[in-house]
Amino acid sequence: MTADTPPASDGPLVRELSEDGLLARILPLLPRGEQTLVPPGDDAAVVAAPDGRFVVTTDVLVEDRHFRRAWSSGQDVGRRAAVQNLADVAAMGASPTSLVAALVIPGDLPVSWVEGLARGLAAECLPLGVGVVGGDLSGGPAVVVAVTAHGDLGGRAPVLRSGARAGDLLAHAGVAGRSAAGLALLEAGRADVDPELVAAHLRPVAPVAAGPEAASAGASAMLDVSDGLLRDAGRMARASGVRIELDSAAFRQDQERLRAAADTLGAVAQRWVLDGGEDHGLLAAFPPGCALPDAFRPVGRVRAGAGVHVDGEPAPAASGWDHFAG
Amino acid sequence: MTADTPPASDGPLVRELSEDGLLARILPLLPRGEQTLVPPGDDAAVVAAPDGRFVVTTDVLVEDRHFRRAWSSGQDVGRRAAVQNLADVAAMGASPTSLVAALVIPGDLPVSWVEGLARGLAAECLPLGVGVVGGDLSGGPAVVVAVTAHGDLGGRAPVLRSGARAGDLLAHAGVAGRSAAGLALLEAGRADVDPELVAAHLRPVAPVAAGPEAASAGASAMLDVSDGLLRDAGRMARASGVRIELDSAAFRQDQERLRAAADTLGAVAQRWVLDGGEDHGLLAAFPPGCALPDAFRPVGRVRAGAGVHVDGEPAPAASGWDHFAG
Repeated sequence: MTADTPPASDGPLVRELSEDGLLARILPLLPRGEQTLVPPGDDAAVVAAPDGRFVVTTDVLVEDRHFRRAWSSGQDVGRRAAVQNLADVAAMGASPTSLVAALVIPGDLPVSWVEGLARGLAAECLPLGVGVVGGDLSGGPAVVVAVTAHGDLGGRAPVLRSGARAGDLLAHAGVAGRSAAGLALLEAGRADVDPELVAAHLRPVAPVAAGPEAASAGASAMLDVSDGLLRDAGRMARASGVRIELDSAAFRQDQERLRAAADTLGAVAQRWVLDGGEDHGLLAAFPPGCALPDAFRPVGRVRAGAGVHVDGEPAPAASGWDHFAG
Repeated sequence: MTADTPPASDGPLVRELSEDGLLARILPLLPRGEQTLVPPGDDAAVVAAPDGRFVVTTDVLVEDRHFRRAWSSGQDVGRRAAVQNLADVAAMGASPTSLVAALVIPGDLPVSWVEGLARGLAAECLPLGVGVVGGDLSGGPAVVVAVTAHGDLGGRAPVLRSGARAGDLLAHAGVAGRSAAGLALLEAGRADVDPELVAAHLRPVAPVAAGPEAASAGASAMLDVSDGLLRDAGRMARASGVRIELDSAAFRQDQERLRAAADTLGAVAQRWVLDGGEDHGLLAAFPPGCALPDAFRPVGRVRAGAGVHVDGEPAPAASGWDHFAG
């Protein structure tokens, strides 16, 4: 090997393979799932719904809107696409059973990137017994990953956003602010300051098992925190017709964890905690007397009224994140 | 109104509305569905699965790959996105219950186009009692519509591609070649020759109800004809380990219907019938003694062997349609 040797190749590009050739590389990477009765390969898959109902949600990731290929590997994107959907299923109190993925990919994408994406989906699904039971592939001008996930309620009532009642305890599972802090570090070119926060942005970890646990414990309302604590708490408050009171001290550890990043960037760690999205924690209300599942800790109270208060003061409306203006 | 009046405006563009504002226009257009227990608005929807299993399939449409905005209205694209997924559900012998749609839209798209898309989904779903139970919206460089559809098997076994056996009758429901002929007319700028064929391309009609009927009648194998009769018959032959023998005379009426278009373009109508995709008919095998449902007519036989024969001669391998090379 000499200095003139070109860098190691990424291997073939998507456009150099047929659709069948690409599928032949991807399909073996995907987990079948414990509830899958007819796996991919026919016109549709068949999945068990032992409860007689299924939960379904869909979320899409678009290149240069939700991720950048310069920062995210295919595996990162696959994990994130799975996690954000699995968290939505969990937020209903359901156990995820299966997902399908529609994938739009430019012809100049390395095949290894697509294989990474499949491995990322598998990495999140396999430990939960979730099957990747279908998909579709198309060319297109940018990478788009549209995942639809399904879950089983195991005989429990779905936990909606609208069930919180005055007197309930408010509790949170997962982390807060890390994804936003990690993104800020990436945008500032300072990923070196705290690679773990950057990883929390690229590969968020959702407390998926905590969703059904909360339902079993009697949670009255729950949602996935994908757009920031204040914004999502506001949604629960509106849907339930209540006031949500958050206690910022409950997030002191989350805030502390962000200190180095905040100091470096001259940012306010508490804003990341309260406004930062895409951590995919679970925010739930529990009636008095419920035993909180281990993954949850108290972060506030549900009161009569409207809106979201932090430490007794009305919270400023969180600034909206608009996907279309960009 | 004077000659100087500008043409009627398409109204606001997507980028002029917030995501919530856009959702407020779309959601009222979507049917709830007969099996929907928790409608959109929470982290996920809940759909009944009375059979204890559900069928699931996903298909994506990408602008300038699967449709052109110059030819297809939003409503056309919505109908097509629904139909191709509902046909896949039907091809398993299931009755569709629900779908979700992930939508990527450029900011310069008229809001009316997106409303049309919602109306197109509704137009296909409402008559079947199918609910549009979830979705996601994102900006992006081109329109992408990723639909995932679900169905209920009603206690029947799913009808796979792999169940055809020597001695079975082969039958077809729906039309053949019309979508390909319509596309050819559009590409040649001769939509005037046969607007009905053009409509068959832009808004294909699938015999969705015939899928569960075939299952009830005892079909041994079935698939949705989306990539052309020869190619999809070849899939059934491979999956079942049989030879499929097609009788071209059975498609004489389909071929006759295409004559004016074929004469105009100097094309061969039989190639459209045998190779044309996206008609979304159903190809099914029935064991001897089954009573064919009304929607099906005999088009051939299943024999021992391999491959696809037409009128006793081995069919040339259909040329593949590759989504990535373009």
